[in-house]
Amino acid sequence: VVESWSFLDTVESNFRPLVVIELAKGTKEETIEWFTKRIVDKKANGGAQLLIKPLVMENGVENIYLVGASHLRLLLGAETVGLVKECSDNSMRTFTYSSRKTFKDFADDNHNFLTMAECQYIIKHELENLRAKNEKMIPGYPQAKLYPGKSIVRRLLTSGILVQIFPLHDREELKKLRHSWYGRVKVGYQPLDDIRCYFGETIALYFGFLEYFTFALIPMAVIGIPYYVFAWEDYDKYVMFATFNLLWSTVILEVWKRICAVLTYRWGTLLMKRQFEEPRPGFHGVLGINPVTGREEPVYSSLKRQLRIYLVSLPFVCLCLYFSLYVMMIYFDLEQWALDYHKENESNFSSLMLYVPSIIYAVVIEIMNRIYRYAAEFLTSWENHRLESSYQNHLILKVLVFNFLNCFASLFYIAFVLFDMKLLRQSLATLLITSQILNQFAESLLPYWLQKRYNRRMKKRLCSQKTDRDLSIAEQVNMEKEMGTYLGTFDDYLELFLQFGYVSLFSCVYPLAAVFAVLNNITEIYSDALKMCRVYKRPFAEPTANIGVWQLAFETMSVISVVTNCILIGMSPQVDALFPDSKMDLVLTVALVEHLLLAIKFIMAFVIPDKPRDIQMKLAKLEFESLEALKQQVRAFQMQL
Amino acid sequence: VVESWSFLDTVESNFRPLVVIELAKGTKEETIEWFTKRIVDKKANGGAQLLIKPLVMENGVENIYLVGASHLRLLLGAETVGLVKECSDNSMRTFTYSSRKTFKDFADDNHNFLTMAECQYIIKHELENLRAKNEKMIPGYPQAKLYPGKSIVRRLLTSGILVQIFPLHDREELKKLRHSWYGRVKVGYQPLDDIRCYFGETIALYFGFLEYFTFALIPMAVIGIPYYVFAWEDYDKYVMFATFNLLWSTVILEVWKRICAVLTYRWGTLLMKRQFEEPRPGFHGVLGINPVTGREEPVYSSLKRQLRIYLVSLPFVCLCLYFSLYVMMIYFDLEQWALDYHKENESNFSSLMLYVPSIIYAVVIEIMNRIYRYAAEFLTSWENHRLESSYQNHLILKVLVFNFLNCFASLFYIAFVLFDMKLLRQSLATLLITSQILNQFAESLLPYWLQKRYNRRMKKRLCSQKTDRDLSIAEQVNMEKEMGTYLGTFDDYLELFLQFGYVSLFSCVYPLAAVFAVLNNITEIYSDALKMCRVYKRPFAEPTANIGVWQLAFETMSVISVVTNCILIGMSPQVDALFPDSKMDLVLTVALVEHLLLAIKFIMAFVIPDKPRDIQMKLAKLEFESLEALKQQVRAFQMQL
Repeated sequence: VVESWSFLDTVESNFRPLVVIELAKGTKEETIEWFTKRIVDKKANGGAQLLIKPLVMENGVENIYLVGASHLRLLLGAETVGLVKECSDNSMRTFTYSSRKTFKDFADDNHNFLTMAECQYIIKHELENLRAKNEKMIPGYPQAKLYPGKSIVRRLLTSGILVQIFPLHDREELKKLRHSWYGRVKVGYQPLDDIRCYFGETIALYFGFLEYFTFALIPMAVIGIPYYVFAWEDYDKYVMFATFNLLWSTVILEVWKRICAVLTYRWGTLLMKRQFEEPRPGFHGVLGINPVTGREEPVYSSLKRQLRIYLVSLPFVCLCLYFSLYVMMIYFDLEQWALDYHKENESNFSSLMLYVPSIIYAVVIEIMNRIYRYAAEFLTSWENHRLESSYQNHLILKVLVFNFLNCFASLFYIAFVLFDMKLLRQSLATLLITSQILNQFAESLLPYWLQKRYNRRMKKRLCSQKTDRDLSIAEQVNMEKEMGTYLGTFDDYLELFLQFGYVSLFSCVYPLAAVFAVLNNITEIYSDALKMCRVYKRPFAEPTANIGVWQLAFETMSVISVVTNCILIGMSPQVDALFPDSKMDLVLTVALVEHLLLAIKFIMAFVIPDKPRDIQMKLAKLEFESLEALKQQVRAFQMQL
Repeated sequence: VVESWSFLDTVESNFRPLVVIELAKGTKEETIEWFTKRIVDKKANGGAQLLIKPLVMENGVENIYLVGASHLRLLLGAETVGLVKECSDNSMRTFTYSSRKTFKDFADDNHNFLTMAECQYIIKHELENLRAKNEKMIPGYPQAKLYPGKSIVRRLLTSGILVQIFPLHDREELKKLRHSWYGRVKVGYQPLDDIRCYFGETIALYFGFLEYFTFALIPMAVIGIPYYVFAWEDYDKYVMFATFNLLWSTVILEVWKRICAVLTYRWGTLLMKRQFEEPRPGFHGVLGINPVTGREEPVYSSLKRQLRIYLVSLPFVCLCLYFSLYVMMIYFDLEQWALDYHKENESNFSSLMLYVPSIIYAVVIEIMNRIYRYAAEFLTSWENHRLESSYQNHLILKVLVFNFLNCFASLFYIAFVLFDMKLLRQSLATLLITSQILNQFAESLLPYWLQKRYNRRMKKRLCSQKTDRDLSIAEQVNMEKEMGTYLGTFDDYLELFLQFGYVSLFSCVYPLAAVFAVLNNITEIYSDALKMCRVYKRPFAEPTANIGVWQLAFETMSVISVVTNCILIGMSPQVDALFPDSKMDLVLTVALVEHLLLAIKFIMAFVIPDKPRDIQMKLAKLEFESLEALKQQVRAFQMQL
């Protein structure tokens, strides 16, 4: 077969802008020239072999560039990043250019074989892997040092020459997606595959988890409603509810792993090989030799990092935890004061006042969480982790511990120190509902409103009567570059995590929590979808095979909730009345039940396989094939001897 | 480079016997002819391309064959099985014939590059992978069906034509090994690397674990002695001892993973790729298509297996557990009777009688364990598992649960139902010591004595004054083929597991248990070494990277021991006296401490990395290299376009 394509198809007619590069205003000419040359240069010369085109704005300033690539270049890039696609025989395989004909929907002229998000991911990967050869610095900026192998784009970003890189929205596709996702009132699943095609796997998996979690909460909510309606207070009904909840939460977390495997197998990320991790952009150190790669790169002593973690970060986190507890005690003083006030002058106003401390506390908690978040980010970045994954893990750990204490300490205090179940129920309800309203507002509605106002002004200024579709590329870029940047799924998962805590930790006191959670999540799906489609710049797709450390966080929460629920049931007056003679027997029984439940949980987690049988079979088949191929290769070689 | 070797070096002068094949007496000529032809046939013709030589015995019967291979054949086989060896630059790499010159100690005329155990493992692998082409049955035995791809050796074994295949001992090497291992009285480590060279990784890892575990118990033993000597009964000392024990047991299990990684990295098995698992020899079913391999092979419905497991095996195991509890109750009746007898007629004899029930019970436990073991093996084999690993896991689970209950139920009963700490201590001591003595006797000394007697008779019959070294191959084979077969490390690990239970479950009642365990393990090392070198046929080497399911079993035991120890301390009269007013506070405190300890355990297990930093670096380096190589390959291909 004669290759009918060549890299010469870099003619403008083929150019489809995929990614936008915004340089700082006033960037020196020689820098721009050098950078664009490196981007279009052949691979053989160490370039990225992409297409680039300056965007001429109305005011004549030329600091924005559009990046694209030829179809062939993208296919070769797909092989480099190790994309996994579906074959004609419905199996998933790593894409290679030489085996391209065996893939489903592949045709030399089908430019939709790779989704736009995949193309953008490939371009991002190629840009990030554009490395310095023997440049000692960025031309024109002697202070921006380079060394052989250093990623040029990362240095440009850290030295402020490159303002941002972001993928362009596809207005047509986005409109279709919006319509099928939240555009019409309907009961049904989200179009996860479409979301994945447009936003990538990480975001699609978050929405998948959100949807799954909402469905999983429905049984709890349904069972919880009659407890509220009929005001059931019998201990056996509570025990049943709590037991069901505890086992159910184990089941749903295990089943999620299976669903996650099904989704990511279909999306190809389950089979995608992990790429070698580069140092994260913010990492700094003296130039040395990396013992793993043998390359020259910044090296930072692990001991120093450990010292920073244990001597600065850890004490700081403890201090914050202490402060959070201190604020909690103030809240209880306020609560007491409101109660006294209510007793002294009983009126409608005073009974309303009873709720004020809780609401204030909920707001303060939210504010403290957000401030702490900045501190945690600063500290973790100061710890100077080499890898993004290690940075993320340390950040998540810091934030989780603090948010957990901040949100639940008061409830623990009420439950296990004050023993006031009525107050517990009331606080739980206030905290849950306030935090949900605050979140929805701060996360989606406010940015949406701001964005909408800004867009309207922009459009008015640009051109009076054009609709979305008629916007020129220049106008689109101009509008999108001002949009906020989506910072990842961290906050969204955190919100779900805390919600799971509200629902499960004290489920036997307040069965209605699940109902509120379900209601919140339904609107959350819509507001998060709105946020993704309307408020933020399109994010780059991030391939991922699971929800990572969050699985562990949710499982830990469900273990803790076994303990809390057992204690709560043990403390209820109905159970108390069952052991009139000996409190000892009561405590021992509760402890025994708790251990049994924990044991059952662990056995269940162990027995339920993490991947469904058919996925296991498919994976085994792939493994078998690759082993056979290797054997064939060895045999072929040996035959030659 | 011109290849100077060829497969023609099959001349007898080069022949070194490595593996012995014993056929059934009276095997038909045509079968032998067909089988030996398949063994020597070229790889291209579907043979194993090995060397085979009949062993002519004195009585002229010719049913024993010696198998060897040319040096080149073994090197190619090493590539096929994926052996990992050390390179000249001290890194570990998968051996390939084409890169052979880069490996340490490699020379075309160095026939010791592969250890004898490795050569034997390669031959075993090649024999087992000798597959039927289009034979429908074994020639001469129409009832022994074959289908394309069926392993010939496995069919020969299951149809009884092939009696056994075993590797030959190397008398020289064995003598050296014996000397350095247990031949002289010395304080020091075992020669693990030599053991691994001679017996393979699985056995070396067992001895490594045994040694490590013994060392790890020493601190417990040292701290435990003064408790006995000075008869310390203060609660704070007990709490300290128990707390130390619990944390210590977590630490040692985590540290073992690291040591295991160091050992198996050095031995190359940490990097060795898992081979595709064949159906186990005993597996049967109707011929169908395996969905994974696409090959014709027996298929057995997973549902049927599940039914067998849950409807037959599970009830049977429960019945056995019930029976074991029943026997326990009889023991307590006996115990009571002995006590009454002692009270009525107090004498030396009657006080001796007090120990009789415990000893009888210990013996009965051992007998029940052994009988149950056979039943469990029968049942698990009847469950018809397709893979050896799945068979092993189900067998281990069955045996572990029963042995755990059988050994510890009486102790739990005494501790938590009778609340008799004195009896607990006494029973624990009796059980521990009796079972240790029984084990040492049944496992090593008895077989050794039998073997020795048999050897002496054999030698006398064969030739009167020859020493070991002068034995001809024929005589050596004749002697070794009658030796027992080593059935794997299962029993040895089980013994250690139960010992760990005796030491840790009730450690705060009987600190001296660790001392006995250490003493037992020191002699155990010697008696196990004796067993391996003197009593059993040489086993085939089994590459392995860890101790597998036993790690989990030991960790589970250490979790259970946290619970038992906390309860024991809570029940001690000294702690009781601390809470004179409220038993509630006591129980709550104990529960709190228990949960704290469990939390600390899990956090420690999470924080301590499973592999030491330098091993992590080496693995990362290898992964980086293979990713780079892949990238180079892709790039080279793309350059051609």
